[in-house]
Amino acid sequence: MEKNSVSKATLGRLPLYLEMLRECEPNKVPYISATVIAKKLSFGEVQVRKDLAAVSGAGKPKLGYVTTELIERLEEALGHNSLTSAVLVGAGKLGRALLQYDEFERYGVKISAAFDSNEQVISLGSKTEILPMNQFEYFCKTQNIQLGIITVGAGSAQAVCDKMVKSGIVAIWNFAPCKLKVPANVLLQNENLALSLAHLNNQLCNFN
Amino acid sequence: MEKNSVSKATLGRLPLYLEMLRECEPNKVPYISATVIAKKLSFGEVQVRKDLAAVSGAGKPKLGYVTTELIERLEEALGHNSLTSAVLVGAGKLGRALLQYDEFERYGVKISAAFDSNEQVISLGSKTEILPMNQFEYFCKTQNIQLGIITVGAGSAQAVCDKMVKSGIVAIWNFAPCKLKVPANVLLQNENLALSLAHLNNQLCNFN
Repeated sequence: MEKNSVSKATLGRLPLYLEMLRECEPNKVPYISATVIAKKLSFGEVQVRKDLAAVSGAGKPKLGYVTTELIERLEEALGHNSLTSAVLVGAGKLGRALLQYDEFERYGVKISAAFDSNEQVISLGSKTEILPMNQFEYFCKTQNIQLGIITVGAGSAQAVCDKMVKSGIVAIWNFAPCKLKVPANVLLQNENLALSLAHLNNQLCNFN
Repeated sequence: MEKNSVSKATLGRLPLYLEMLRECEPNKVPYISATVIAKKLSFGEVQVRKDLAAVSGAGKPKLGYVTTELIERLEEALGHNSLTSAVLVGAGKLGRALLQYDEFERYGVKISAAFDSNEQVISLGSKTEILPMNQFEYFCKTQNIQLGIITVGAGSAQAVCDKMVKSGIVAIWNFAPCKLKVPANVLLQNENLALSLAHLNNQLCNFN
Protein backbone atom coordinates (compact mmCIF):
# COMPACT_ATOMS: atom_id res chain seq x y z
CA MET A 1 0.00 0.00 0.00
CA GLU A 2 1.29 3.40 -0.92
CA LYS A 3 1.36 5.70 2.05
CA ASN A 4 0.59 9.37 1.54
CA SER A 5 0.92 12.00 4.20
CA VAL A 6 -2.48 13.61 4.37
CA SER A 7 -3.20 16.85 6.24
CA LYS A 8 -5.36 16.66 9.34
CA ALA A 9 -8.07 18.78 7.70
CA THR A 10 -8.23 16.53 4.63
CA LEU A 11 -8.13 13.44 6.81
CA GLY A 12 -11.16 14.73 8.69
CA ARG A 13 -13.19 14.95 5.50
CA LEU A 14 -12.28 11.55 4.06
CA PRO A 15 -14.87 9.56 6.07
CA LEU A 16 -17.56 11.95 4.79
CA TYR A 17 -16.59 11.28 1.16
CA LEU A 18 -16.48 7.59 1.85
CA GLU A 19 -19.93 7.49 3.45
CA MET A 20 -21.47 9.55 0.72
CA LEU A 21 -20.00 7.34 -2.03
CA ARG A 22 -21.17 4.17 -0.34
CA GLU A 23 -24.67 5.60 -0.10
CA CYS A 24 -24.56 6.35 -3.85
CA GLU A 25 -24.71 2.63 -4.61
CA PRO A 26 -21.69 2.36 -6.93
CA ASN A 27 -23.36 -0.20 -9.18
CA LYS A 28 -25.91 2.45 -10.15
CA VAL A 29 -23.42 5.33 -10.25
CA PRO A 30 -20.28 3.97 -11.95
CA TYR A 31 -18.67 7.42 -12.32
CA ILE A 32 -18.88 10.45 -10.08
CA SER A 33 -17.42 13.93 -10.60
CA ALA A 34 -15.86 16.25 -8.04
CA THR A 35 -18.62 18.74 -8.89
CA VAL A 36 -21.34 16.28 -7.89
CA ILE A 37 -19.49 15.25 -4.73
CA ALA A 38 -18.98 18.90 -3.74
CA LYS A 39 -22.66 19.64 -4.26
CA LYS A 40 -23.85 16.64 -2.27
CA LEU A 41 -21.64 17.52 0.71
CA SER A 42 -21.93 21.33 0.44
CA PHE A 43 -18.14 21.57 0.13
CA GLY A 44 -16.19 23.86 -2.18
CA GLU A 45 -15.29 22.18 -5.47
CA VAL A 46 -11.62 23.22 -5.24
CA GLN A 47 -11.37 21.65 -1.80
CA VAL A 48 -12.94 18.40 -3.01
CA ARG A 49 -10.51 18.21 -5.95
CA LYS A 50 -7.56 18.81 -3.64
CA ASP A 51 -8.73 16.28 -1.05
CA LEU A 52 -9.34 13.57 -3.63
CA ALA A 53 -6.06 14.30 -5.40
CA ALA A 54 -4.28 13.59 -2.10
CA VAL A 55 -5.59 10.02 -2.02
CA SER A 56 -6.33 9.20 -5.65
CA GLY A 57 -5.33 10.45 -9.07
CA ALA A 58 -7.39 13.02 -10.93
CA GLY A 59 -10.75 11.86 -12.31
CA LYS A 60 -11.31 11.09 -15.98
CA PRO A 61 -12.19 14.17 -18.07
CA LYS A 62 -15.98 14.57 -18.50
CA LEU A 63 -16.67 11.42 -16.48
CA GLY A 64 -15.09 11.92 -13.08
CA TYR A 65 -13.87 9.19 -10.78
CA VAL A 66 -14.67 5.51 -11.06
CA THR A 67 -16.83 5.24 -7.95
CA THR A 68 -15.62 1.82 -6.78
CA GLU A 69 -11.98 2.82 -7.26
CA LEU A 70 -12.41 6.04 -5.34
CA ILE A 71 -14.03 4.12 -2.48
CA GLU A 72 -11.02 1.78 -2.40
CA ARG A 73 -8.54 4.67 -2.37
CA LEU A 74 -10.41 6.35 0.48
CA GLU A 75 -10.50 3.10 2.46
CA GLU A 76 -6.76 2.69 1.96
CA ALA A 77 -6.01 6.25 3.03
CA LEU A 78 -8.13 5.74 6.14
CA GLY A 79 -6.22 2.56 6.91
CA HIS A 80 -9.25 0.27 6.61
CA ASN A 81 -7.13 -2.41 5.01
CA SER A 82 -4.51 -2.27 7.72
CA LEU A 83 -6.04 -1.29 11.05
CA THR A 84 -3.40 -0.07 13.49
CA SER A 85 -3.68 -1.90 16.81
CA ALA A 86 -3.49 0.35 19.84
CA VAL A 87 -3.50 -0.23 23.59
CA LEU A 88 -4.98 2.03 26.24
CA VAL A 89 -3.69 2.37 29.80
CA GLY A 90 -6.07 3.66 32.46
CA ALA A 91 -9.58 2.24 32.20
CA GLY A 92 -11.30 4.89 34.32
CA LYS A 93 -14.27 6.93 33.04
CA LEU A 94 -12.34 8.64 30.26
CA GLY A 95 -10.53 5.47 29.25
CA ARG A 96 -13.79 3.53 29.15
CA ALA A 97 -15.44 6.31 27.15
CA LEU A 98 -12.70 5.97 24.55
CA LEU A 99 -13.08 2.19 24.53
CA GLN A 100 -16.77 2.66 23.74
CA TYR A 101 -16.14 5.26 21.08
CA ASP A 102 -17.16 3.83 17.71
CA GLU A 103 -15.38 6.34 15.56
CA PHE A 104 -11.80 5.15 15.83
CA GLU A 105 -12.13 2.20 13.46
CA ARG A 106 -13.55 4.49 10.80
CA TYR A 107 -10.15 6.20 10.93
CA GLY A 108 -8.06 3.03 10.89
CA VAL A 109 -7.32 2.45 14.58
CA LYS A 110 -8.53 -0.42 16.72
CA ILE A 111 -7.95 -0.52 20.49
CA SER A 112 -6.89 -4.15 20.98
CA ALA A 113 -6.75 -4.14 24.77
CA ALA A 114 -6.89 -1.86 27.78
CA PHE A 115 -4.76 -2.10 30.89
CA ASP A 116 -5.26 -0.95 34.44
CA SER A 117 -3.48 -1.50 37.73
CA ASN A 118 -6.74 -1.46 39.68
CA GLU A 119 -8.28 -4.93 40.18
CA GLN A 120 -11.75 -3.45 40.60
CA VAL A 121 -11.59 -1.65 37.27
CA ILE A 122 -10.43 -4.85 35.57
CA SER A 123 -13.34 -6.81 37.00
CA LEU A 124 -15.83 -4.26 35.60
CA GLY A 125 -15.14 -5.64 32.14
CA SER A 126 -15.82 -3.94 28.85
CA LYS A 127 -16.34 -4.95 25.22
CA THR A 128 -12.56 -4.49 24.92
CA GLU A 129 -10.53 -6.75 27.22
CA ILE A 130 -9.14 -5.00 30.33
CA LEU A 131 -5.91 -6.64 31.52
CA PRO A 132 -3.65 -6.14 34.54
CA MET A 133 -0.53 -4.03 34.05
CA ASN A 134 1.85 -6.95 34.60
CA GLN A 135 0.74 -8.33 31.22
CA PHE A 136 1.38 -5.05 29.41
CA GLU A 137 4.90 -5.47 28.11
CA TYR A 138 4.35 -9.07 27.01
CA PHE A 139 1.13 -8.15 25.20
CA CYS A 140 2.65 -5.19 23.36
CA LYS A 141 5.74 -7.09 22.28
CA THR A 142 3.93 -10.23 21.10
CA GLN A 143 1.18 -8.24 19.34
CA ASN A 144 3.68 -5.75 17.92
CA ILE A 145 1.69 -2.78 19.25
CA GLN A 146 2.94 0.60 18.06
CA LEU A 147 0.35 3.01 19.38
CA GLY A 148 -0.47 3.69 23.03
CA ILE A 149 -3.17 5.83 24.64
CA ILE A 150 -2.62 7.22 28.14
CA THR A 151 -5.72 7.94 30.20
CA VAL A 152 -4.26 7.67 33.70
CA GLY A 153 -3.87 10.61 36.10
CA ALA A 154 -1.01 13.09 35.87
CA GLY A 155 0.78 11.37 38.76
CA SER A 156 1.38 8.07 37.00
CA ALA A 157 1.47 9.19 33.36
CA GLN A 158 5.27 9.40 33.02
CA ALA A 159 5.72 5.89 34.43
CA VAL A 160 3.12 4.55 31.99
CA CYS A 161 4.77 6.45 29.15
CA ASP A 162 8.18 4.95 30.01
CA LYS A 163 6.65 1.49 30.11
CA MET A 164 5.11 2.05 26.68
CA VAL A 165 8.42 3.13 25.17
CA LYS A 166 10.15 0.13 26.74
CA SER A 167 7.48 -2.15 25.26
CA GLY A 168 8.13 -0.93 21.72
CA ILE A 169 5.38 1.67 21.34
CA VAL A 170 6.40 4.52 19.02
CA ALA A 171 3.33 6.77 19.02
CA ILE A 172 1.62 7.99 22.20
CA TRP A 173 -1.66 9.84 22.60
CA ASN A 174 -1.62 11.41 26.03
CA PHE A 175 -4.74 12.59 27.88
CA ALA A 176 -3.05 13.10 31.26
CA PRO A 177 -2.77 16.81 32.07
CA CYS A 178 1.03 16.88 32.29
CA LYS A 179 4.15 17.11 30.16
CA LEU A 180 5.71 13.80 29.19
CA LYS A 181 9.29 13.12 28.25
CA VAL A 182 9.78 10.72 25.35
CA PRO A 183 12.83 9.75 23.27
CA ALA A 184 13.26 11.64 19.97
CA ASN A 185 12.08 8.64 17.93
CA VAL A 186 8.68 8.48 19.66
CA LEU A 187 5.71 10.52 18.43
CA LEU A 188 3.80 12.23 21.23
CA GLN A 189 0.43 13.92 20.85
CA ASN A 190 -1.09 15.63 23.87
CA GLU A 191 -4.83 15.97 24.24
CA ASN A 192 -5.71 18.47 26.92
CA LEU A 193 -9.50 18.52 27.08
CA ALA A 194 -9.57 21.08 29.88
CA LEU A 195 -7.43 23.38 27.79
CA SER A 196 -9.80 23.18 24.83
CA LEU A 197 -12.65 24.13 27.09
CA ALA A 198 -10.59 26.90 28.68
CA HIS A 199 -9.84 28.29 25.25
CA LEU A 200 -13.53 28.40 24.37
CA ASN A 201 -14.28 30.00 27.73
CA ASN A 202 -11.57 32.59 27.22
CA GLN A 203 -13.04 33.49 23.81
CA LEU A 204 -16.47 33.67 25.42
CA CYS A 205 -15.20 36.08 28.10
CA ASN A 206 -13.76 38.39 25.45
CA PHE A 207 -16.87 38.02 23.34
CA ASN A 208 -19.34 39.19 25.96
CA MET B 1 -12.26 42.21 36.27
CA GLU B 2 -10.13 43.12 33.31
CA LYS B 3 -10.42 40.59 30.55
CA ASN B 4 -7.35 39.82 28.50
CA SER B 5 -7.32 37.59 25.48
CA VAL B 6 -4.67 35.01 26.21
CA SER B 7 -3.31 32.59 23.61
CA LYS B 8 -4.16 28.93 23.99
CA ALA B 9 -0.50 28.04 24.54
CA THR B 10 -0.08 30.62 27.32
CA LEU B 11 -3.40 29.61 28.85
CA GLY B 12 -2.17 26.04 29.04
CA ARG B 13 0.85 27.05 31.10
CA LEU B 14 -0.95 29.34 33.56
CA PRO B 15 -2.13 26.52 35.88
CA LEU B 16 1.48 25.33 36.11
CA TYR B 17 2.68 28.77 37.22
CA LEU B 18 -0.15 28.98 39.68
CA GLU B 19 0.55 25.60 41.25
CA MET B 20 4.24 26.27 41.51
CA LEU B 21 3.70 29.66 43.18
CA ARG B 22 1.23 28.21 45.67
CA GLU B 23 3.76 25.53 46.58
CA CYS B 24 6.35 28.26 47.19
CA GLU B 25 4.46 29.39 50.29
CA PRO B 26 4.17 33.11 49.49
CA ASN B 27 4.67 34.16 53.11
CA LYS B 28 8.20 32.76 52.94
CA VAL B 29 8.89 33.91 49.38
CA PRO B 30 7.47 37.46 49.12
CA TYR B 31 9.10 38.12 45.73
CA ILE B 32 9.86 35.78 42.87
CA SER B 33 11.68 36.50 39.61
CA ALA B 34 10.91 35.19 36.13
CA THR B 35 14.38 33.59 36.18
CA VAL B 36 13.54 31.54 39.26
CA ILE B 37 10.12 30.57 37.90
CA ALA B 38 11.66 29.51 34.58
CA LYS B 39 14.24 27.39 36.35
CA LYS B 40 11.73 25.68 38.62
CA LEU B 41 9.48 24.73 35.71
CA SER B 42 12.24 24.07 33.13
CA PHE B 43 10.69 26.70 30.85
CA GLY B 44 12.58 29.26 28.77
CA GLU B 45 12.94 32.60 30.54
CA VAL B 46 11.68 34.58 27.55
CA GLN B 47 8.54 32.46 27.45
CA VAL B 48 7.92 32.95 31.17
CA ARG B 49 8.30 36.73 30.86
CA LYS B 50 5.89 36.80 27.92
CA ASP B 51 3.33 34.58 29.64
CA LEU B 52 3.37 36.57 32.85
CA ALA B 53 3.27 39.88 30.98
CA ALA B 54 0.01 38.71 29.38
CA VAL B 55 -1.71 38.45 32.76
CA SER B 56 0.24 40.80 35.00
CA GLY B 57 2.58 43.77 34.60
CA ALA B 58 6.34 43.36 34.52
CA GLY B 59 8.06 42.43 37.76
CA LYS B 60 9.97 44.94 39.89
CA PRO B 61 13.62 45.35 38.80
CA LYS B 62 16.00 43.17 40.86
CA LEU B 63 13.12 41.80 42.95
CA GLY B 64 10.69 40.21 40.54
CA TYR B 65 6.97 39.76 41.10
CA VAL B 66 5.15 40.14 44.40
CA THR B 67 4.23 36.47 44.86
CA THR B 68 0.74 37.00 46.30
CA GLU B 69 -0.13 39.54 43.58
CA LEU B 70 1.04 37.24 40.82
CA ILE B 71 -1.08 34.43 42.25
CA GLU B 72 -4.11 36.73 42.20
CA ARG B 73 -3.49 37.79 38.59
CA LEU B 74 -3.15 34.15 37.50
CA GLU B 75 -6.35 33.20 39.31
CA GLU B 76 -8.16 36.05 37.58
CA ALA B 77 -6.87 35.09 34.15
CA LEU B 78 -7.96 31.51 34.76
CA GLY B 79 -11.40 32.72 35.74
CA HIS B 80 -11.21 31.43 39.33
CA ASN B 81 -13.08 34.47 40.59
CA SER B 82 -15.84 34.08 38.07
CA LEU B 83 -16.38 30.45 37.16
CA THR B 84 -18.33 30.10 33.92
CA SER B 85 -21.29 27.76 34.36
CA ALA B 86 -21.72 25.21 31.62
CA VAL B 87 -24.26 22.50 30.86
CA LEU B 88 -23.61 19.19 29.19
CA VAL B 89 -26.11 17.27 27.06
CA GLY B 90 -25.64 13.53 26.64
CA ALA B 91 -24.64 11.74 29.82
CA GLY B 92 -23.33 8.58 28.16
CA LYS B 93 -19.79 7.28 28.74
CA LEU B 94 -18.04 10.29 27.24
CA GLY B 95 -20.38 12.78 28.90
CA ARG B 96 -19.91 11.11 32.27
CA ALA B 97 -16.14 11.05 31.78
CA LEU B 98 -16.22 14.81 31.28
CA LEU B 99 -18.44 15.26 34.34
CA GLN B 100 -15.83 13.41 36.37
CA TYR B 101 -12.92 15.32 34.91
CA ASP B 102 -11.39 17.43 37.66
CA GLU B 103 -9.41 19.74 35.44
CA PHE B 104 -12.14 22.05 34.16
CA GLU B 105 -12.50 24.13 37.31
CA ARG B 106 -8.76 24.78 37.29
CA TYR B 107 -9.44 26.57 34.01
CA GLY B 108 -12.50 28.50 35.13
CA VAL B 109 -15.39 26.35 33.97
CA LYS B 110 -17.87 24.47 36.13
CA ILE B 111 -20.40 22.03 34.67
CA SER B 112 -23.56 22.99 36.59
CA ALA B 113 -25.81 20.25 35.30
CA ALA B 114 -26.03 17.50 32.73
CA PHE B 115 -29.07 16.57 30.67
CA ASP B 116 -30.15 13.40 28.97
CA SER B 117 -33.31 12.16 27.31
CA ASN B 118 -32.79 8.61 28.56
CA GLU B 119 -34.50 7.88 31.89
CA GLN B 120 -32.06 5.08 32.68
CA VAL B 121 -29.05 7.35 32.28
CA ILE B 122 -30.68 9.93 34.55
CA SER B 123 -31.31 7.35 37.26
CA LEU B 124 -27.62 6.36 37.24
CA GLY B 125 -26.84 9.62 38.97
CA SER B 126 -23.50 11.38 39.14
CA LYS B 127 -21.78 13.94 41.35
CA THR B 128 -23.21 16.49 38.90
CA GLU B 129 -26.99 16.47 38.66
CA ILE B 130 -28.40 14.73 35.57
CA LEU B 131 -31.75 16.18 34.54
CA PRO B 132 -34.33 15.27 31.89
CA MET B 133 -34.26 17.27 28.65
CA ASN B 134 -37.64 18.88 29.27
CA GLN B 135 -36.00 20.96 32.01
CA PHE B 136 -33.18 22.12 29.76
CA GLU B 137 -34.46 25.44 28.45
CA TYR B 138 -35.84 26.57 31.81
CA PHE B 139 -32.58 25.68 33.57
CA CYS B 140 -30.38 27.50 31.06
CA LYS B 141 -32.52 30.61 31.03
CA THR B 142 -32.91 30.91 34.80
CA GLN B 143 -29.24 30.12 35.47
CA ASN B 144 -28.08 32.32 32.59
CA ILE B 145 -25.97 29.52 31.11
CA GLN B 146 -23.74 30.62 28.23
CA LEU B 147 -21.67 27.53 27.54
CA GLY B 148 -22.94 24.16 26.34
CA ILE B 149 -21.17 20.85 25.80
CA ILE B 150 -22.60 18.34 23.33
CA THR B 151 -21.77 14.68 23.94
CA VAL B 152 -24.70 13.04 22.18
CA GLY B 153 -24.41 10.97 19.00
CA ALA B 154 -24.15 12.52 15.54
CA GLY B 155 -27.83 11.81 14.87
CA SER B 156 -29.21 14.11 17.56
CA ALA B 157 -26.43 16.69 17.81
CA GLN B 158 -28.01 19.33 15.56
CA ALA B 159 -31.30 19.19 17.47
CA VAL B 160 -29.42 19.60 20.76
CA CYS B 161 -27.39 22.43 19.29
CA ASP B 162 -30.56 24.24 18.14
CA LYS B 163 -32.06 23.82 21.60
CA MET B 164 -28.93 25.28 23.17
CA VAL B 165 -29.03 28.33 20.90
CA LYS B 166 -32.74 28.80 21.64
CA SER B 167 -31.96 28.62 25.38
CA GLY B 168 -29.45 31.46 25.22
CA ILE B 169 -26.19 29.53 24.98
CA VAL B 170 -23.54 31.39 22.98
CA ALA B 171 -20.56 29.03 23.11
CA ILE B 172 -20.77 25.35 22.17
CA TRP B 173 -18.17 22.63 22.59
CA ASN B 174 -19.18 19.80 20.27
CA PHE B 175 -17.93 16.21 20.63
CA ALA B 176 -20.42 14.69 18.19
CA PRO B 177 -18.68 13.57 15.00
CA CYS B 178 -20.65 15.83 12.65
CA LYS B 179 -20.84 19.37 11.35
CA LEU B 180 -23.19 21.67 13.23
CA LYS B 181 -24.90 24.79 11.95
CA VAL B 182 -24.96 27.72 14.37
CA PRO B 183 -25.90 31.38 13.97
CA ALA B 184 -22.99 33.79 13.37
CA ASN B 185 -23.13 35.11 16.95
CA VAL B 186 -22.53 31.68 18.49
CA LEU B 187 -19.01 30.32 19.09
CA LEU B 188 -18.59 26.71 18.04
CA GLN B 189 -15.60 24.54 18.86
CA ASN B 190 -15.49 21.01 17.51
CA GLU B 191 -13.62 18.29 19.31
CA ASN B 192 -13.12 15.29 17.09
CA LEU B 193 -11.27 12.75 19.21
CA ALA B 194 -11.21 10.15 16.45
CA LEU B 195 -9.61 12.67 14.15
CA SER B 196 -6.82 13.42 16.63
CA LEU B 197 -6.07 9.73 16.86
CA ALA B 198 -6.28 9.37 13.08
CA HIS B 199 -3.78 12.17 12.69
CA LEU B 200 -1.34 10.44 15.03
CA ASN B 201 -1.91 7.17 13.19
CA ASN B 202 -1.30 8.82 9.84
CA GLN B 203 1.99 10.26 11.13
CA LEU B 204 2.90 6.83 12.47
CA CYS B 205 2.24 5.21 9.07
CA ASN B 206 4.55 7.69 7.37
CA PHE B 207 7.09 7.36 10.14
CA ASN B 208 7.57 3.60 9.82
